[in-house]
Amino acid sequence: MNAEIITIGDEILLGQVVDTNSAWLGQLLDAQNIAVRQITSISDNREAITHALDEAAKRSDLIIVTGGLGPTKDDVTKETIASYFQTTLIRDEQVLSHVMSIFEKFGNGRPMPAMNYGQADVLACSEVLFNDVGTAPGMWVEHEGRCFAFLPGVPFEMKFLLEKRVLPKLSAFRANVNIYHAHVITMGIGESYLAELIADIEAELPSYIRLAYLPKLGTVRLRLSAVGVDAGGLKEETDSFAQRIATRTEPYLVAEKDVTIEEAIVEEFAKDGIRLAIAESCTGGLLAGSITAVSGASAMFDCGIVAYHNRIKQQLLGVDEEILKAFGAVSEQTVIQMAEGVKRVGGATYGIATSGIAGPTGGTPEKPVGTVWIAVAGPFETVTQLFHFRNDRQVNIERSIAQALNMLWKLYKKDKGK
Amino acid sequence: MNAEIITIGDEILLGQVVDTNSAWLGQLLDAQNIAVRQITSISDNREAITHALDEAAKRSDLIIVTGGLGPTKDDVTKETIASYFQTTLIRDEQVLSHVMSIFEKFGNGRPMPAMNYGQADVLACSEVLFNDVGTAPGMWVEHEGRCFAFLPGVPFEMKFLLEKRVLPKLSAFRANVNIYHAHVITMGIGESYLAELIADIEAELPSYIRLAYLPKLGTVRLRLSAVGVDAGGLKEETDSFAQRIATRTEPYLVAEKDVTIEEAIVEEFAKDGIRLAIAESCTGGLLAGSITAVSGASAMFDCGIVAYHNRIKQQLLGVDEEILKAFGAVSEQTVIQMAEGVKRVGGATYGIATSGIAGPTGGTPEKPVGTVWIAVAGPFETVTQLFHFRNDRQVNIERSIAQALNMLWKLYKKDKGK
Repeated sequence: MNAEIITIGDEILLGQVVDTNSAWLGQLLDAQNIAVRQITSISDNREAITHALDEAAKRSDLIIVTGGLGPTKDDVTKETIASYFQTTLIRDEQVLSHVMSIFEKFGNGRPMPAMNYGQADVLACSEVLFNDVGTAPGMWVEHEGRCFAFLPGVPFEMKFLLEKRVLPKLSAFRANVNIYHAHVITMGIGESYLAELIADIEAELPSYIRLAYLPKLGTVRLRLSAVGVDAGGLKEETDSFAQRIATRTEPYLVAEKDVTIEEAIVEEFAKDGIRLAIAESCTGGLLAGSITAVSGASAMFDCGIVAYHNRIKQQLLGVDEEILKAFGAVSEQTVIQMAEGVKRVGGATYGIATSGIAGPTGGTPEKPVGTVWIAVAGPFETVTQLFHFRNDRQVNIERSIAQALNMLWKLYKKDKGK
Repeated sequence: MNAEIITIGDEILLGQVVDTNSAWLGQLLDAQNIAVRQITSISDNREAITHALDEAAKRSDLIIVTGGLGPTKDDVTKETIASYFQTTLIRDEQVLSHVMSIFEKFGNGRPMPAMNYGQADVLACSEVLFNDVGTAPGMWVEHEGRCFAFLPGVPFEMKFLLEKRVLPKLSAFRANVNIYHAHVITMGIGESYLAELIADIEAELPSYIRLAYLPKLGTVRLRLSAVGVDAGGLKEETDSFAQRIATRTEPYLVAEKDVTIEEAIVEEFAKDGIRLAIAESCTGGLLAGSITAVSGASAMFDCGIVAYHNRIKQQLLGVDEEILKAFGAVSEQTVIQMAEGVKRVGGATYGIATSGIAGPTGGTPEKPVGTVWIAVAGPFETVTQLFHFRNDRQVNIERSIAQALNMLWKLYKKDKGK
């Protein structure tokens, strides 16, 4: 079974919203053995919507359309799709009373705006996908051998409808083809060297198992994708190739499953009873946030300190005033004291610290924008590294976080080997 | 001038990478008065690439293709586009020596993998877009009245090539049509009520000025988009409508330009000499991170404390042990002491604190997942609010951040009015 995703709305084309919906849908459909062939983002105008539906229906069995179902006037989706299916819009009484009840609950006594009545209008040819968590109903249409799901663009409403309404409907349409993925996550080796290192294994892959390299900020995720009829055989053969790759790449190995470096750290530290504390300057809370975004982080993380001002570095982390005066906040000496300080304050096994100039302002000739010192204080030693990123603020912060986690992982693996 | 974006690579279709490149491109092209008509994400296979290029060339003047230029074997892009333009690949000596110099610099003495020689192969019909910051060169092709830019998918390489290589080439192709946007940012009023509030103004808009509602987590961004020949007249007329909308929505107004609530807070606080400190439990550093991600945040932010463990809440924020014992960490009493504590420790004018159960685990019958207390301590009073989110961990954290910033903004506006 193949699928396509169509997102409707100028906000994605204008870049004012990042299309996280499609990424979420892609992951979910992949897990359901449904291959996404194309994602198309278009404006909410009649011609673009009609053409995108036409094209998608030529290629794919399942077409998921998100967005364009809001109550305001910039939405022409429903009328366009009604003519596409040569049907009409009818008011659904159950949806209407649901929409009204939401306004009663949250409207603070104000009457429901007239335009919201239109949210209860659905395609006459559709099955309503009842939206418990919002006012825009989803719609399911089967047409000339294709299935269409129309969903609101608000992420949690879309997710609710997909999981609770769409997935159950799909079971009936599943083909007999299985897709299986295996992953090997590596760190600290570039894509090209990795490809050379495992070239002979890759050359042995049969035509129905494909290897993809997915590099991102110091990690390379290797994904083996197998397609075939015999689910058990596919899994066994793919896992065996993944195992060979993992063994070959052992010095760089993070995990043999599809996890991020943050997830690997949280899982391993929690398992080993190891605790982490984080002191941040240039990463401003986002390094701690990358760890706490992982469910279960409280089992290995107690304390983060965002010491943006030097006074806070002294007061909360115990950095010496003399060190700050002599070497500055962005220095090896300061970042060592920050890492060791937060480790002590947090009562942790490992302390990480970042201090740098994220930009776009604040650089000097000696310490230009992108200069970042990172330290990791462990049970046996404190390691430091100086980085010279030369990107925009956001990328400098992201790279600092990635490198800090990489340094932590490396030191932890080394200590564990002791 | 119209544009389209095509992204090549399974990682976007599989949802393993969120397509932030297209959002960035959309914003940049919009600022250049170039309307993006469609974004298409496809797999790196010959048929999909050829079809997407065909379709895009039918509609748009400029086609920007990202991804599919890496050195590993899963990339068939270059060969496919060579046949699309009925041309061949030739090795570019300048690119080759650049690629080799990068490997000399970062390869730690290892020889360059053979496959990287292929990165210097470019379309014979193309102009090379020299990539100073990476190994994959961009390519510029003019073909049957259309312009094509092929760029690597690595975000900062793509951005470098777009800004330094593509934009200068575009100046020659600009049409005489102007696009102008004006924005009004509101907070604390739903999309529908807002639409009712300004219905008469919206009804007066001429056909060439369009109003879009862009709701996101408590804020609604109103965007007026005008298209026409007379740039000066368009700007004046659009700004005048924006001014009327801003005046009408004054109680909910955040800004009369396209900024986020975080940017508005950083700008206003820095201007007024007001300082902010942040204590976080459930938001785990990401609330501080949302502020420090804004350039210039150091002018109004000194100190953040991620007090995940109760011991840290006591030790660094001065929360009473008795309060924690009697009411728990997720309580009004605790969050008040956290906000007032971090305000005191940070020497700030305002302190924010969050404490809640982000999920998916940790809930109890009395305090289910999604229960979040937020406090803002200001110069005159401390305000608190209890929220019951019922979403996944990530959304609960995002909503907590949005509500905390909303509460801060509201209290700050009230205090300012005193």
